[in-house]
Amino acid sequence: MAALVLHEYAASGNCYKIRLTAAHLGLPLERREYDIVKGETRTPEFLGQVNANGRIPVLQLGTDDFLPESNAACFYLADGSDLIPHDRFARADMLRWLFWEQYNHEPNVATLRFWTVWIGLDNLSEVQCAMLPAKRAAGEAALALMDEHLAKRDWFVIDRLTLADIALYAYTHVAEAGGFSLQPYPALRAWLDRMAALPRHIPITA
Amino acid sequence: MAALVLHEYAASGNCYKIRLTAAHLGLPLERREYDIVKGETRTPEFLGQVNANGRIPVLQLGTDDFLPESNAACFYLADGSDLIPHDRFARADMLRWLFWEQYNHEPNVATLRFWTVWIGLDNLSEVQCAMLPAKRAAGEAALALMDEHLAKRDWFVIDRLTLADIALYAYTHVAEAGGFSLQPYPALRAWLDRMAALPRHIPITA
Repeated sequence: MAALVLHEYAASGNCYKIRLTAAHLGLPLERREYDIVKGETRTPEFLGQVNANGRIPVLQLGTDDFLPESNAACFYLADGSDLIPHDRFARADMLRWLFWEQYNHEPNVATLRFWTVWIGLDNLSEVQCAMLPAKRAAGEAALALMDEHLAKRDWFVIDRLTLADIALYAYTHVAEAGGFSLQPYPALRAWLDRMAALPRHIPITA
Repeated sequence: MAALVLHEYAASGNCYKIRLTAAHLGLPLERREYDIVKGETRTPEFLGQVNANGRIPVLQLGTDDFLPESNAACFYLADGSDLIPHDRFARADMLRWLFWEQYNHEPNVATLRFWTVWIGLDNLSEVQCAMLPAKRAAGEAALALMDEHLAKRDWFVIDRLTLADIALYAYTHVAEAGGFSLQPYPALRAWLDRMAALPRHIPITA
């Protein structure tokens, strides 16, 4: 595999996902940090060379190939490994959770963490304030759906760790920083503990 | 392959994607229609049997397997076919566009179509009204990014049709119903024409 460079903001759960996937696979990653609050991913250099969409993470492969979108980068790293199910339905079902994470979980659970910790709830714009109750309710619904799913199984898709667990762990395990309580979700908390106890696990601060 | 049943709302671009993928693969789909405006995907039966997330589309495989999330359903259908690149980087790059579609395109371009045509801009809630300018700007930015990408290539990922083209076509080709003009995007319009001219293409109304 070509040398891997992760263009990232380390505290972002989307970036952590990729580091966690690499850790489980034993792959070394070179890391380059950008301050998203200072707009370092919106410079002409970043937009022209790394990602025209102006976002991190981006996984760079060798010198010429750049892969934005966290879950796509995780898929690239894990392709062919046991982190992606070998059964056709289970593979698609894993992708189901990755898409669900980006549509139903991240825009609510991750956004409230960002608004709370980085922007500050007192500094939100009028539009952000107006969106807050719906985002909180949608985030709680996402956590509840995960808890319900995990009540009957140890891992999201098959009887072992897959990318679905890694992608969903990233923002769920720091959801309390966004004002979400995990107390109502015992199956979800047990799964968080199982994740953190895996031999190759690394914390978001690593 | 087990018998395929698509639980859908036919006018939804997310449902159309799956029908378009099946058409390109020559796969027959049985279709079951739900009226989302009347809440037919939030009944106890639907939530218990089809999708706990209360959303369509869901692809049913045989009697027991249900696959929510449009792009995951497309992946299941196309797995092993030429609609998914055989090269590892290109395969992940295709997934990059599928995740980008769900995060940057659909919540803006599709949502404004839904608000305009199904709800009516005069009937939007206060929060929806507050979100409208940002959603319009983000939708325009998504269309502009697609146009810029297509200025240098005929298809999104490799030199032929992949799921990235199909997923992005679904809501882009009806973006004008949400008040977006496609006039500023000549490369994007040429790609829409290429898509519609493909031998197995079917329209959203089929």
